[in-house]
Amino acid sequence: MTPLRLGLLGFGTVGSSVARILVERPELADRIQLTHVFNRDVARKRVPWVPSSVTWTDNVDELLAAQPDVVVEVIGGVDPAGGWVRRALQQGAAVVTANKQLLAAQGPELLHLAVTNHTQLRFEAAVGGGVPLIHGVREGLAGDNLKGVQGILNGTSNYILSRMAGSDEAMAPVLEDARRLGYAEADPSADIDGDDAGAKLVVLAGIAFRRHLRLSDIPRRSIRPIAAADFRYARTLGCTIRQISMVEARGDGFHAFVGPALVLRGSNFGLNMGANNVVTIVGQYGGKSTFSGAGAGGPATAVAVVSDLLALTQRHRDHTEERRQDVPVDGEERRQGVPGDSEEWLPGTVVPPPPRPYYLRFVVKDRPGIVASIAASLAAQGINLDSMLQEPGYDKDALPFVMTVEACEEAALGTALQEIAAAEYHAEPPLALPILLGEDPRT
Amino acid sequence: MTPLRLGLLGFGTVGSSVARILVERPELADRIQLTHVFNRDVARKRVPWVPSSVTWTDNVDELLAAQPDVVVEVIGGVDPAGGWVRRALQQGAAVVTANKQLLAAQGPELLHLAVTNHTQLRFEAAVGGGVPLIHGVREGLAGDNLKGVQGILNGTSNYILSRMAGSDEAMAPVLEDARRLGYAEADPSADIDGDDAGAKLVVLAGIAFRRHLRLSDIPRRSIRPIAAADFRYARTLGCTIRQISMVEARGDGFHAFVGPALVLRGSNFGLNMGANNVVTIVGQYGGKSTFSGAGAGGPATAVAVVSDLLALTQRHRDHTEERRQDVPVDGEERRQGVPGDSEEWLPGTVVPPPPRPYYLRFVVKDRPGIVASIAASLAAQGINLDSMLQEPGYDKDALPFVMTVEACEEAALGTALQEIAAAEYHAEPPLALPILLGEDPRT
Repeated sequence: MTPLRLGLLGFGTVGSSVARILVERPELADRIQLTHVFNRDVARKRVPWVPSSVTWTDNVDELLAAQPDVVVEVIGGVDPAGGWVRRALQQGAAVVTANKQLLAAQGPELLHLAVTNHTQLRFEAAVGGGVPLIHGVREGLAGDNLKGVQGILNGTSNYILSRMAGSDEAMAPVLEDARRLGYAEADPSADIDGDDAGAKLVVLAGIAFRRHLRLSDIPRRSIRPIAAADFRYARTLGCTIRQISMVEARGDGFHAFVGPALVLRGSNFGLNMGANNVVTIVGQYGGKSTFSGAGAGGPATAVAVVSDLLALTQRHRDHTEERRQDVPVDGEERRQGVPGDSEEWLPGTVVPPPPRPYYLRFVVKDRPGIVASIAASLAAQGINLDSMLQEPGYDKDALPFVMTVEACEEAALGTALQEIAAAEYHAEPPLALPILLGEDPRT
Repeated sequence: MTPLRLGLLGFGTVGSSVARILVERPELADRIQLTHVFNRDVARKRVPWVPSSVTWTDNVDELLAAQPDVVVEVIGGVDPAGGWVRRALQQGAAVVTANKQLLAAQGPELLHLAVTNHTQLRFEAAVGGGVPLIHGVREGLAGDNLKGVQGILNGTSNYILSRMAGSDEAMAPVLEDARRLGYAEADPSADIDGDDAGAKLVVLAGIAFRRHLRLSDIPRRSIRPIAAADFRYARTLGCTIRQISMVEARGDGFHAFVGPALVLRGSNFGLNMGANNVVTIVGQYGGKSTFSGAGAGGPATAVAVVSDLLALTQRHRDHTEERRQDVPVDGEERRQGVPGDSEEWLPGTVVPPPPRPYYLRFVVKDRPGIVASIAASLAAQGINLDSMLQEPGYDKDALPFVMTVEACEEAALGTALQEIAAAEYHAEPPLALPILLGEDPRT
């Protein structure tokens, strides 16, 4: 077959790894041919191991004017990448992207554009790095009626929390180490406050349910308030703390959440260490399937991009073989090297979660009557206490203690916590974490 | 689009679950239409919830004469299922099968037949039940250069071994319970002696490497000799015991193995409980990806079958949309509803494993000099002892003790063990288990 002519937008960690795989696997040469590399200040990116036939450019127009069959977009961010992806689709090129932010923001429009232009938009690399989640869910579990997705989608947060769990350290030094080791960026907000995982969750919901949830509708809670004491109290409950992303069908809508939560220590989530990702998909017929592996990194993410490219060449071959048998290929048709995909995401609605138990942690300037006052506020909302934990040995001016409450509505808890937070005895704002015991323990 | 007309061969646990998913998910009706169900003694299989338009037959010729677009084969076994799959492919029907034995025995021929007849043979359901391994590996990791596959592929063996590990029970009562609970068949040989996992390993090697290994070339060891004492000794080493299936590229060939092995207790394998499956794929670029979930069961396996059917309808649609635009559809072309797939498996060679450490367990009628004699036989082959374990409290007429040896060639160990086994002091034959520490611990 004629190789798909590929234009690569972005030659950073992922983009250069894509090029490297294509160079190092010569058996792919008759399927994919890298013709153009675009990057800002492209001169400083140039590497000798890329074939001399490749055109390096810092002008995106030059790349698009060459009418590539496929454009790989590994620049990231909504602008200007989104506009370039749109132009590529509009001129009939297939697009492979790793850009979760763009998909979260504009997924429905871009997928629709792919359909109307009889081409494809693929994004295995947007979630889970090298873990083949998108293929697994979209194709491998297509036969199921999926009910929910739960996972650890952000390696930075997992690195921080799993290390804190093991070492009783505070967050600040661990975050500092994460920066030094390259697990966290200088500004780690997107990772630890939940926007990165939230964007991935939007993509997974699109794949699992063909519904688009707006990132702004998904509650995201930061892991910043989690302290060493929380891991000690969680351990007493048989739990640990992880940044969990989840979306579950509930009535006509979807309950969704990103943030720190208590999970069983022996569960797949509790056992997930370092920067690894782990995702569990729940189906009506097949039950739970779990995927795990390196969630990020140039080579792993590049594998996902190249896998998408190979899927395109498969479709391209079907297409051109049909054509060869049946009709002459003219210039107009040559341009549309890859047949379209019908996938589109309809709008989806985020609804409140079902009642669930919560872990409540207070840090107070100790004096008599605090517990009675908190308990009264909870009782006024019909919320039952399940346990109360107070370890000895803390400073009385900043005394952390914990209450767990039985399953309750999030709104009722919010009302109670608002009342509680108004009291004068707090040394830190109260912290509420959902307790997610749905996942069975592994041990 | 015109729905794919489906003929179902076999209406047992999996076949009836396939029909149930198609009936319960009406949104699939315009993509797949069940037209025929074949089973022996079909009258007793008939169920009221299948649409009355479906023809029930115990005559496979009747089903094939109806020229289905797709045949689902969920009968199992090489004969007669293999002949029917061949006939279906020869008349241009796509085939979806869950039949690992058939694929292990005749995969290359059947895949070639699919290619020459411009159709597809799909088999997501043959390995890992509802875990979307085949899609994940074949498509999701297509961009990587895969190096190895390791996993727990047989739920029955894992149920038995994980329960023994937790309870210190002997194998006999656990196997009895497994039978009663439906985890083991009346004759559990295929599960516990490794043939079932071996056939799945052949399929995985085909997917990962596009090479066909002969099942008869893959060393398979039974879990039958594993005793309660082995779990106690393994625990002393930080390990537990699981039936592991593995295949790894080595030079021009593949090292392959199915059988009980020591694995770290905190690894994905050591933590895998009950009848669950778990498989880790290692790639040059992407590192490790792990898949886990229910490895068997009618509904989970049926999800895999229906996912394959939906993948076929996608290809079918590409195809018919092309046709609609370009050429009139005549009768001959109508029959070939699904374009072909180029996948074929070339012959692969099984080679010896690399040097690795082993756990050696002896059960002896105790007398002085036994350890010296065993150590001498090992030393004669250049094999270094790593540790020696002997717990107190065992019967001196059947005393189990353990030696672990440093990484050594399997052939050298075999020579030493042959000499050792010839001695008169054994109460049971010596047992040698590979120690697989390659997998990183989870905890």
